[in-house]
Amino acid sequence: MLDQIHLLAAVTVLGVLEQAYFFLQVIYARRAFGISPPKISGPPEFERIFRAQVNSSEYFPIFLALLWQAGLFFHQGLAAALGLLYLYARYCYFMGYRASSSERLTPIYLSSGVLWILLAASALGILHFFLSHYVELNVLHLLTA
Amino acid sequence: MLDQIHLLAAVTVLGVLEQAYFFLQVIYARRAFGISPPKISGPPEFERIFRAQVNSSEYFPIFLALLWQAGLFFHQGLAAALGLLYLYARYCYFMGYRASSSERLTPIYLSSGVLWILLAASALGILHFFLSHYVELNVLHLLTA
Amino acid sequence: MLDQIHLLAAVTVLGVLEQAYFFLQVIYARRAFGISPPKISGPPEFERIFRAQVNSSEYFPIFLALLWQAGLFFHQGLAAALGLLYLYARYCYFMGYRASSSERLTPIYLSSGVLWILLAASALGILHFFLSHYVELNVLHLLTA
Repeated sequence: MLDQIHLLAAVTVLGVLEQAYFFLQVIYARRAFGISPPKISGPPEFERIFRAQVNSSEYFPIFLALLWQAGLFFHQGLAAALGLLYLYARYCYFMGYRASSSERLTPIYLSSGVLWILLAASALGILHFFLSHYVELNVLHLLTA
Repeated sequence: MLDQIHLLAAVTVLGVLEQAYFFLQVIYARRAFGISPPKISGPPEFERIFRAQVNSSEYFPIFLALLWQAGLFFHQGLAAALGLLYLYARYCYFMGYRASSSERLTPIYLSSGVLWILLAASALGILHFFLSHYVELNVLHLLTA
Repeated sequence: MLDQIHLLAAVTVLGVLEQAYFFLQVIYARRAFGISPPKISGPPEFERIFRAQVNSSEYFPIFLALLWQAGLFFHQGLAAALGLLYLYARYCYFMGYRASSSERLTPIYLSSGVLWILLAASALGILHFFLSHYVELNVLHLLTA
């Protein structure tokens, strides 16, 4: 069983490391700008770093859910590769947002695009499983027949 | 193995689509009310939409965790059906909260109720597994003996 | 298959119960301080409870991701035990933060420490799988040879 998920597990752990990096940046920014918890408002420089972390945290479960469905039902290697691309886009998003609000846009489009591809792969893979399982219809056989 | 999780996977992907819909509503509301990131405060109409998305995001990992435990340890079909009901209740919650704070209450009670049922199913299923695994006690056999 | 995940599933359900407890504390605090949704600012006593819940929610998917990778690729029993320790640390964190901002520090260090151990266990377990799977190198055999 681990054979079918080890690449997904590796990307998941890398994703956690990236989240940890984002959390640390917020802690450093809190010190740099003198904003102690539970306060979350401050100068735009702080709020951009804070919001970049919050946004990344909100998308993390969505990313993991799609990574694993795409990997289990479509193709593990492809899902893992897209997962790495997503983590790269998220890193660019965080660094861009820290610099200015507008610089977060290009990487957020990239990361959203990757998520939509993972979602399409998940949906196709699950649909294929439903068809072959319930209707005994094997689409790949049809295409190659 | 996919046989035991394909309904859970399908509901998971539908749940991600719903989260995507909520994120888009916040983006539209930011444009409509002229509230650029990283700002998160504004008129109550905006803050209600924003908070509805944040609350749904916070509950999403909890929902997935219970959906999958209930599906794996209790009954996949029942868990998936409850999952669809939860997603419907979340949609009503979002639309209600957008209209007014009080209109979020009925659907939030429904969605919480569904989560408690999923939690009970998970707990019962896991407890049954523990009993039959460690004490070799099969409760279903006892009941039908 | 359930044999390899039942302890992880049990800790996951306990974690959801803890999250439910934190959500309830915020609802009670909203009533006690008269802060109706969608408002999220108020006296420091309220904001500490609110931020303690938000922080715990942000870490919940990270915790689950590491719990499951460590349990699947390293050792289920150890991962579950560390999971229980994490949930205990989170409870101390919530109660400490409610009392004062400084009292959240010791338990947050404990909970972070547990997460880093889970991450190390996950990484080691996945690395071991990669080595034995791709290089046919069994590290444990080497060590005991």
